[in-house]
Amino acid sequence: MTGEALAGLSLNTATVRAQWGLEEMIPACRPAGITGISPWRDQVAATGLEETARMIEGEGLAVTGLCRGGMFTRAEADGTQAVLDDNRRAIEEAARIGAACLVLVVGGLAPGSRDIDGARAQVRDMLGVLLPEARKAGVPLAIEPLHPMYAADRACVNTMAHANDLCDELGEGLGIALDVYHVWWDPALSDEIVRAGRRILAFHICDWLVPTRDLLMDRGMMGDGVIDIPRIRKEVQATGYSGHAEVEIFSSEDWWKRPPEEVLATCRERYDSVV
Amino acid sequence: MTGEALAGLSLNTATVRAQWGLEEMIPACRPAGITGISPWRDQVAATGLEETARMIEGEGLAVTGLCRGGMFTRAEADGTQAVLDDNRRAIEEAARIGAACLVLVVGGLAPGSRDIDGARAQVRDMLGVLLPEARKAGVPLAIEPLHPMYAADRACVNTMAHANDLCDELGEGLGIALDVYHVWWDPALSDEIVRAGRRILAFHICDWLVPTRDLLMDRGMMGDGVIDIPRIRKEVQATGYSGHAEVEIFSSEDWWKRPPEEVLATCRERYDSVV
Repeated sequence: MTGEALAGLSLNTATVRAQWGLEEMIPACRPAGITGISPWRDQVAATGLEETARMIEGEGLAVTGLCRGGMFTRAEADGTQAVLDDNRRAIEEAARIGAACLVLVVGGLAPGSRDIDGARAQVRDMLGVLLPEARKAGVPLAIEPLHPMYAADRACVNTMAHANDLCDELGEGLGIALDVYHVWWDPALSDEIVRAGRRILAFHICDWLVPTRDLLMDRGMMGDGVIDIPRIRKEVQATGYSGHAEVEIFSSEDWWKRPPEEVLATCRERYDSVV
Repeated sequence: MTGEALAGLSLNTATVRAQWGLEEMIPACRPAGITGISPWRDQVAATGLEETARMIEGEGLAVTGLCRGGMFTRAEADGTQAVLDDNRRAIEEAARIGAACLVLVVGGLAPGSRDIDGARAQVRDMLGVLLPEARKAGVPLAIEPLHPMYAADRACVNTMAHANDLCDELGEGLGIALDVYHVWWDPALSDEIVRAGRRILAFHICDWLVPTRDLLMDRGMMGDGVIDIPRIRKEVQATGYSGHAEVEIFSSEDWWKRPPEEVLATCRERYDSVV
């Protein structure tokens, strides 16, 4: 196994969300050699927050994150208060399940807008409002820079450099969720990982397929694509990161159609062989 | 018209390639208010180099570029000599038709490779070989940074910063083709346009659609997407760029299915209203 200095493998629940609810996923982790979990909020809501917390505690799984807060740029459409309140609930939920961080997908352009600088300023401002509350709750906020192909509709923070800039500006309690899928192409990646240092709160893995047939739903299993995952893992570990590697695969036409037991077994096998 | 300080609108021939050959495109430009053209090499080959040059001269069109050279990272599969020779032919063709630049799509990862740093080094090295020959031929080479979603399979130069770094290193005769589609998302864009200055050899336009349904073939007509084109145009013009805006739309399911006269008329109308 190449990733031995990490804490282990964690399951981002998106990976088998088409097949299973949390009730099935949580007990299936440990038997598959998976010692962490990172649930999505809609799944937590479906199972119930207390029941989710109870089940995860019962299995002794690390909670490597809660997915997700953010979507700050919906404020114009949904109302600033509504967006802030939703993030506050996410912070509470993250605290309740003992998540290592609340992952933030910050939102893209507001509907009808072409003002990406404005969107980025709004993200910064709303982070500034929420951060003191997150600190008080003991929940680190993790900005996830998304691949530039999501800049318009999902997240206008698209590089490690930008996430690091926000952390510089806003300070303690704000960190970064690094997903190899989103950042592998960036020529500044190695430098920005060093710059991030202990700000890296989560390390997400999957792979970039060639060809990629869909912008959202065609992520690959580790080893099936072109990302040099061990290189990025080593750079992340060199910052002092010793948490889990969290597998997160959106794959509506492949992995989401397979038996979930097979998916988990493959995740673990690839974690051992190519991460 | 907002783009009045530019030289005019140029047609990248990919825009109507599904409907027309160069024989139809070239005479259709001026009647549509299009005063430049940027042909693709396969189309030039189909029409013949001399005939293409003759027709373009006859219409008095500016040749804003030749598409394309590059694909340096195919050297391992195809042989370094073959790739260099192909680029040498492209330089000759660009000289013959009086192209303002030879556009370079530099190539992605070599087949089976995960070594993006290695690919980038290979691009630099092969540019270093070709650049003196391009200078001698009087053909500026224009690196086109492609969107990061093409890093694996088309071009491992994905930001203006990286293209500027290559220009810094390799010097005179090397410049940049800036396509709004590829760079609009970049938080460093404005700074890197300033840094590029007179290196900007071509200015390509289209739009980013939301949603984007295909990574390659779903580019939008100017005004139909979310790119703030006038802002980028002004920044490019502020560097002293006074060439054409070149429309380049890959759209297998929409614009490539429309009557080409309608496509050209729409390009001109949008150039007047939203560029």
